[in-house]
Amino acid sequence: MLNIGIIGFGRIGRVHAETISRFVQDAKIKAIADPLLKDDDANWARSLGVMETYTDYRKIIEDKTIEALLICSSTDTHSQISLEAIKQKKHVFCEKPIDHDVNKIKLVMEALKGSKVKYQVGFNRRFDHNFKAVEDAMLRGEIGDLNILKITSRDPAPPPISYIKVSGGIFLDMTIHDFDMVRFISKAEAIDVFATGSAMVDSEIGKAGDIDTAAVTITLNNGAIAIIDNCRRASYGYDQRIEAFGSLGQIAIANDTNSTAVISNGRGVIAEKPKHFFLDRYTQAYIDEVKSFIASIVEDTPVLVNVEDGLKPVLIGLAARLSLHEKRIVSITEIEKKYDLNVL
Amino acid sequence: MLNIGIIGFGRIGRVHAETISRFVQDAKIKAIADPLLKDDDANWARSLGVMETYTDYRKIIEDKTIEALLICSSTDTHSQISLEAIKQKKHVFCEKPIDHDVNKIKLVMEALKGSKVKYQVGFNRRFDHNFKAVEDAMLRGEIGDLNILKITSRDPAPPPISYIKVSGGIFLDMTIHDFDMVRFISKAEAIDVFATGSAMVDSEIGKAGDIDTAAVTITLNNGAIAIIDNCRRASYGYDQRIEAFGSLGQIAIANDTNSTAVISNGRGVIAEKPKHFFLDRYTQAYIDEVKSFIASIVEDTPVLVNVEDGLKPVLIGLAARLSLHEKRIVSITEIEKKYDLNVL
Amino acid sequence: MLNIGIIGFGRIGRVHAETISRFVQDAKIKAIADPLLKDDDANWARSLGVMETYTDYRKIIEDKTIEALLICSSTDTHSQISLEAIKQKKHVFCEKPIDHDVNKIKLVMEALKGSKVKYQVGFNRRFDHNFKAVEDAMLRGEIGDLNILKITSRDPAPPPISYIKVSGGIFLDMTIHDFDMVRFISKAEAIDVFATGSAMVDSEIGKAGDIDTAAVTITLNNGAIAIIDNCRRASYGYDQRIEAFGSLGQIAIANDTNSTAVISNGRGVIAEKPKHFFLDRYTQAYIDEVKSFIASIVEDTPVLVNVEDGLKPVLIGLAARLSLHEKRIVSITEIEKKYDLNVL
Amino acid sequence: MLNIGIIGFGRIGRVHAETISRFVQDAKIKAIADPLLKDDDANWARSLGVMETYTDYRKIIEDKTIEALLICSSTDTHSQISLEAIKQKKHVFCEKPIDHDVNKIKLVMEALKGSKVKYQVGFNRRFDHNFKAVEDAMLRGEIGDLNILKITSRDPAPPPISYIKVSGGIFLDMTIHDFDMVRFISKAEAIDVFATGSAMVDSEIGKAGDIDTAAVTITLNNGAIAIIDNCRRASYGYDQRIEAFGSLGQIAIANDTNSTAVISNGRGVIAEKPKHFFLDRYTQAYIDEVKSFIASIVEDTPVLVNVEDGLKPVLIGLAARLSLHEKRIVSITEIEKKYDLNVL
Repeated sequence: MLNIGIIGFGRIGRVHAETISRFVQDAKIKAIADPLLKDDDANWARSLGVMETYTDYRKIIEDKTIEALLICSSTDTHSQISLEAIKQKKHVFCEKPIDHDVNKIKLVMEALKGSKVKYQVGFNRRFDHNFKAVEDAMLRGEIGDLNILKITSRDPAPPPISYIKVSGGIFLDMTIHDFDMVRFISKAEAIDVFATGSAMVDSEIGKAGDIDTAAVTITLNNGAIAIIDNCRRASYGYDQRIEAFGSLGQIAIANDTNSTAVISNGRGVIAEKPKHFFLDRYTQAYIDEVKSFIASIVEDTPVLVNVEDGLKPVLIGLAARLSLHEKRIVSITEIEKKYDLNVL
Repeated sequence: MLNIGIIGFGRIGRVHAETISRFVQDAKIKAIADPLLKDDDANWARSLGVMETYTDYRKIIEDKTIEALLICSSTDTHSQISLEAIKQKKHVFCEKPIDHDVNKIKLVMEALKGSKVKYQVGFNRRFDHNFKAVEDAMLRGEIGDLNILKITSRDPAPPPISYIKVSGGIFLDMTIHDFDMVRFISKAEAIDVFATGSAMVDSEIGKAGDIDTAAVTITLNNGAIAIIDNCRRASYGYDQRIEAFGSLGQIAIANDTNSTAVISNGRGVIAEKPKHFFLDRYTQAYIDEVKSFIASIVEDTPVLVNVEDGLKPVLIGLAARLSLHEKRIVSITEIEKKYDLNVL
Repeated sequence: MLNIGIIGFGRIGRVHAETISRFVQDAKIKAIADPLLKDDDANWARSLGVMETYTDYRKIIEDKTIEALLICSSTDTHSQISLEAIKQKKHVFCEKPIDHDVNKIKLVMEALKGSKVKYQVGFNRRFDHNFKAVEDAMLRGEIGDLNILKITSRDPAPPPISYIKVSGGIFLDMTIHDFDMVRFISKAEAIDVFATGSAMVDSEIGKAGDIDTAAVTITLNNGAIAIIDNCRRASYGYDQRIEAFGSLGQIAIANDTNSTAVISNGRGVIAEKPKHFFLDRYTQAYIDEVKSFIASIVEDTPVLVNVEDGLKPVLIGLAARLSLHEKRIVSITEIEKKYDLNVL
Repeated sequence: MLNIGIIGFGRIGRVHAETISRFVQDAKIKAIADPLLKDDDANWARSLGVMETYTDYRKIIEDKTIEALLICSSTDTHSQISLEAIKQKKHVFCEKPIDHDVNKIKLVMEALKGSKVKYQVGFNRRFDHNFKAVEDAMLRGEIGDLNILKITSRDPAPPPISYIKVSGGIFLDMTIHDFDMVRFISKAEAIDVFATGSAMVDSEIGKAGDIDTAAVTITLNNGAIAIIDNCRRASYGYDQRIEAFGSLGQIAIANDTNSTAVISNGRGVIAEKPKHFFLDRYTQAYIDEVKSFIASIVEDTPVLVNVEDGLKPVLIGLAARLSLHEKRIVSITEIEKKYDLNVL
């Protein structure tokens, strides 16, 4: 029985806690920590059988009986906690992104070098049944060589401006999932990035120095082109689709809905809207990513989303940001040089 | 160049006239006749290059230069005109049904015996791209042996009560197309018929002795079961679908729409309603059935919908009517005996 | 904390056990019993924290600390165990059907009269997201008055002949779910039943006195017509669909699939097959029906599928069987009289 | 009765000839001309009632009784014939593009200044039922302000290399239709263009200095972003889709198919491939564009695709070509300046 600690007990921390207590027989949550821990959180943890609740995450880091931890705290704490955990030889599941600062990710990568610590990054979409169906079809050769990969990713509504301001910008906060999907589906790496966009949804987002609607074109080292479009607001809900087009065909995925019901009446033939937002859409993916993390520890297999998978989308995001600001194509090599990453 | 006469210049007569003048190079409409012919009709005919317009259809029957005619007049005149035309060795395209009275159809069949006259019945749906796709798939063996054939056939709105009263009842007027489709798709013949239904749409239809909503179950001589459901009113338009289920799979067809557009918004994911009614849905089928009739004359090939195909659905319709009224299963043999049809 | 006993630890008993241990915080499985209990079963039970495992179900009936039990044993034992449980004032969740013999169901109904025991029957489809979407739309008035209700229910493959022989026949074993759906969606009761069908899939089924392909037409006391088609084998998987057509529109549900992926290539535009069989399709429904049962005990609310809901589909099934054999319409009144059920 | 001349009697010339002879009552084809006119062409023309057939198009230009002509010859002759026709005050329907050379288009524009000649450019997609459904929904305000416009346009197979070499490159030959669609749907003008792509389908295309797979991103003067993806080969046929996403929703169109048939079997749920290529997909659009041209003459109304609509997509195409070659964003202003087009 693997003892687990959870650091950060907000929405996503709770999701993971529930998953482990319901679905993972090999693991048990021993403790949770959150600097803002409330009675309510503690009670809820207790209802899952978690008796130790702390405000100081170091209590978890120092607990020798805890073998793995889930970092679900705010992004700016991820790298520091990761470093401390790795030092204590604890396996780490870290929510995405590891950090907005490449230098901090580099520190984590260096700490992992030669270590036996499993380090998984929380790119949950890799575990989604639809995205996996695309990957599977690609691996089976259904579409031949990839030519064009199109990703649509739109939120139902923008987050509060206060969140936008600390989000690192749309490319590092929202598109970063799509950058990961580009790599996951194409099994290729980005070469050049072109990004454009503006604040079409809310001018306050523009005033905060960010955009809310974007298009990114990426050329890949297998010759294919990836095209991403994003918007912070879709009136019909969470819109998460992919089309992968290749020499032998295309595979496309549509959104999930709560039911397959279609009503026909004088107004038209009306199907359901997509599932509203990420917790509805990715319920099972959140379960499967944590099960996969635990399994990789128990069975000593590589994690499915490693620290490099955590780094690469950040590099693409930085390239996209630069492209947008300077109205030019930006190569990943340029970003890598900036951070002295040619060692990779 | 084949000279054609058209008898009956209502809605469907005009449709056929337009088809011949636009799409059939081997044929030319020489004359039209309609007892209620108006100036407007004559002008419209002239715009198609048809210079002879009569109120008396015999003018067409007697014209030695006319080789083929289309009977588009009211149902009660079909058999009489057919008999006169066959006598004059004119090829006949007769709108469905030949007659509601089996004895009159028998007279037409006898007149055709040994004759070289081509006689085609206007079951236009056999020429529809969707229904043909089902037939094609069946013939290719895509679904193996047919087990269950489901036909949905619903009109957008009921016809006037005055029409209902002379229509012969829902089974001979509306379901008759579906009985034809059962034979067309299954390539089998009806054995037993069970029908139920009532006037759910308009109680006036009930007072007129008819029903507007029906379900018919037919057992076929290949062992399969056919299930038809009808309604005189569908709020979303003309609903014409088939599902053929067999030992190796299913083929299903959906309705046609004016476009493939789908609007997603706060109310749902909204596709178009089906094409509104038969003239919209079967535009091309009406063209293709007349082209096929002309081609069968020009190339001396069998017509695709012959006089037996005109008779059989009437027998099923009479069985359905009896089943509804007597609340019992009625065999086609029972109907055949009634009309001394064991010669068939 | 509610103590639960599970009687019958086959496939469905295990499904319910897992549900309770994972998803129901208010309840705990105290004991399981199965006459054929193997070590493997006992180990599996233990992994869920169930320490008491018996071959004799009476151990559970006699345990005063157990307040509710799930009867998942073979159909012929349902009524007897139900009676014993009700006598001990234990709440009962009984898998469908209660029994094939109406007289035995009557005994259970009498035992329940005046009792405070909650008695729920396992018609799981009432808890399925798609079927509920139909019910919801009906209750919201989306389609107005129901005219025609079409239910398609096909299995991927027939069960073994040995099962067929004790199944009570297709109408009591398979169609019974659809009879329940007719009542659930229409909120109406059956008046007349017409059934037809044959053994098209496997002649062995025919030799066993049963059929494998069926069509049933039911007239309802709200004037609507229900049409069910069944087959024991669909090459493309488990096919569970409904179309409810009414005065204001139609609502239709399609099958669930493992993903929304669609592959376009030279062979066509290819979507996934339906989820393979009932455990895949109704995973969540099985969870929700048990949660609902527990909630009705804890909150003292009526169960959502009561003993009458258990009886009525059996009556329709018996009418369908008689209709098939005697090739005539059979009224529910005729069946009710046979069992002296006019008290209802 | 309007006398029409057709110059160029290749595939598209014949399509237009058939349209006029079948569907346009107000017009009559008096003559056709084609430098490579064969007996076969002349016979075919005669079957449509066209008695005058020439190898020299000037015979048509000089015919005082001909009021309008359709230029269906090779692109390099369009502008010269246009100029001669305008001089003779003949109305012109000119196939797209007017020319690859902006200076030649400018000459046509100048010739039209102050003239009463109707000049329509053959952007047939504006008359397609699906694309028009998007325009209609936009005009009705269904999606609010446009944010993102996505156009997919893929051919089933590349044309011969010999054609590629004189095509003007993918952007002026193929994407030009999509550039027109961007303007048609958005009712906005391009500001900046970014293009990328390569020869992924056929390296011979690359050797010819062209690409076969492309992605173009265009920022529009209403703030929206348009994204186009092209490929010269799609294994599943002609792929022509649009998604217009805005503040209130999205409208998307799918491909047309020959039927709505869906086959379900052990391999999946299989719908038809898209209609194979442009003549199948745009059959009705080709009819409607010519009917619209004739109507604009007869009723003296503005043409729906005027000479500016012919120029603008060429400018975007030139910007895309430059962007691809110089790996940078190119503004339309830069192209306009190059051709001294600031007068516009």
